[in-house]
Amino acid sequence: MKTPFAKRRRALLSQLAGARLGSLLITHPPSWYYLTGFTGESGALVVSRRGVALITDGRFIQQAREETGGVRIVPQEGSLVASVGQFLRGAGGRVGFDASHVTVGQMRTLRRAGGSRVRWIPAGGHVESLRARKEPEEIGRMRKAAFLIGEVLEGALKLLKPGVRELEVAAEIDHQMRRQGASGPAFESIVAFGERSAFPHARPTAKRLRKNELVVLDVGAILAHYCSDITRTVVVGRASARIRRWHRAVQEAQSAAVETVKVGVTCGEVDAAARRILAGYRLDRYFVHSTGHGLGLEVHEDPRVAKGQKQVLEPGNVITIEPGVYVPGIGGIRIEDDVAVHAERTEVLTRVPRDLIEI
Amino acid sequence: MKTPFAKRRRALLSQLAGARLGSLLITHPPSWYYLTGFTGESGALVVSRRGVALITDGRFIQQAREETGGVRIVPQEGSLVASVGQFLRGAGGRVGFDASHVTVGQMRTLRRAGGSRVRWIPAGGHVESLRARKEPEEIGRMRKAAFLIGEVLEGALKLLKPGVRELEVAAEIDHQMRRQGASGPAFESIVAFGERSAFPHARPTAKRLRKNELVVLDVGAILAHYCSDITRTVVVGRASARIRRWHRAVQEAQSAAVETVKVGVTCGEVDAAARRILAGYRLDRYFVHSTGHGLGLEVHEDPRVAKGQKQVLEPGNVITIEPGVYVPGIGGIRIEDDVAVHAERTEVLTRVPRDLIEI
Repeated sequence: MKTPFAKRRRALLSQLAGARLGSLLITHPPSWYYLTGFTGESGALVVSRRGVALITDGRFIQQAREETGGVRIVPQEGSLVASVGQFLRGAGGRVGFDASHVTVGQMRTLRRAGGSRVRWIPAGGHVESLRARKEPEEIGRMRKAAFLIGEVLEGALKLLKPGVRELEVAAEIDHQMRRQGASGPAFESIVAFGERSAFPHARPTAKRLRKNELVVLDVGAILAHYCSDITRTVVVGRASARIRRWHRAVQEAQSAAVETVKVGVTCGEVDAAARRILAGYRLDRYFVHSTGHGLGLEVHEDPRVAKGQKQVLEPGNVITIEPGVYVPGIGGIRIEDDVAVHAERTEVLTRVPRDLIEI
Repeated sequence: MKTPFAKRRRALLSQLAGARLGSLLITHPPSWYYLTGFTGESGALVVSRRGVALITDGRFIQQAREETGGVRIVPQEGSLVASVGQFLRGAGGRVGFDASHVTVGQMRTLRRAGGSRVRWIPAGGHVESLRARKEPEEIGRMRKAAFLIGEVLEGALKLLKPGVRELEVAAEIDHQMRRQGASGPAFESIVAFGERSAFPHARPTAKRLRKNELVVLDVGAILAHYCSDITRTVVVGRASARIRRWHRAVQEAQSAAVETVKVGVTCGEVDAAARRILAGYRLDRYFVHSTGHGLGLEVHEDPRVAKGQKQVLEPGNVITIEPGVYVPGIGGIRIEDDVAVHAERTEVLTRVPRDLIEI
């Protein structure tokens, strides 16, 4: 089987040459999966022109041998980071590491075990920037993950009857996504009724649904390693005039942001497009988070779609667009889609209708 | 309602006084939940004699106000760590942080934002050592979480028929735990058939069960915030003489380790008890991981039950005991229970029979 891993490692190596790094240490699991196919939960990857080594412990040695190709598997001795330091000690030189993943304590151990011939260079974002520009095959997988979560979300609407509990709906959503082939939820599914919908990241509780309450469903699935993420807002019964107005505002804000997405635009401009519409409704102070985030092997990755972000959208980026308004004591409304940026067009991967759903 | 949070913060403050720390920065979510009840996903807690402050972003402000008591909620401005640095800038003094949770990049931002009056002192383990000595109420919750996962595991045995897929069994296990009140799995459920059982941390795949194959089920549930973790090994059909011998060895090793557990014994002695039995069977080289780990709000926490660990068991510790043997190309066997250490006795929380299950 032809795998994409060796090609990705070559792309990374040419970046490292540009940054005058002899090696790069990668301790973040989604990034080592991206470069090797290894799905174990503990390890460290060292990429250099001399080859690629994966250091891991006894639980994962056999698995690493079977999952990877062209990677030297090095059993750790003692702690993982001490083994990494030892491994790098011989060659020495400039070794890049990601300061946003390596802890202060790990760094201390790395310096000690690596000795004085290793120069540790903060060099984050190398793998992340490759991951942010998805290959067509990756976008294909994300299309399927987005389709799957749309089906699951539409199926879950049937459960929304007065008396049902948030936890019951969340459990059924997670079960359905796995029945349809997902390995699991991409994050803890959000099912928030009534006032609880005013918490953007509510965890499902035993609360029962009452008639005419708002329902926010924010759910995602992992399918073949890639995440999807969708939000819809529902009223079980009749929405008040005020709720209708809020929903219209969020829907317009979301459309405006989606329409702004294209190659060459900054993420900050996309965020501003949503904020501008909500300001027109005098609802911007209730929009308490950023407009979106990159999506892929992780549910939050590059690029960030937030106020003032200068990062320019590139072909292959996949981002969420998810403005919302949250009024404490009353409720919240959010609409979220996953959007892929192509060279010549923008593709909305999540295809569930966006209008206020009354059931 | 009487909550345990204020009492825990008082215990922490007396530790900080002993370590001559003016404040302690806590960035690890289970630890801030332990001290405040806050369940949000992003934030930082600062505990000092002058009071307790939780710095978090707009998504969690309202939630933090409702979930906590006696805690000042500080909305972050800009990045979380920059806000933490700013917050600490005024008072200055010796501020403890956990070097195993703060990244090199965060530390750089903290130093810059905190200014020269703050002295940053690596001070890990303060909250972790409190968390490792569970209160009776916490052990009560863990008893329920352990009972729940035992019921789910026994129910799942009925699914083990030739032709069923690992993923189907895993999905059903996760669904059943939530139907019984769990908020979700404590970790990705391990359901490994045949040769795949030789991977201690196998992820479930589409592989179908064949007659006479080994099955390792390693599953855990989170109930009322606390984790359980259990493993049993099953043969669907008849076990060979070799498999029976391996299972007997693991079962004896597991019993020996459980019997070693008591107040005053080191974790290394518990680990050695399991290893000694396996060495008697000449199977010790197939035991590729440590004997167990602490369990509580997290599925892996203090104390570690591994080779040479000098940490002494104390009343309130809850640990797993889970030796195994893994033979590449053939299969693996593991038996795991959760064990609570009381002053006068040891309590096995997971009550499912340990004999080789043939079905």
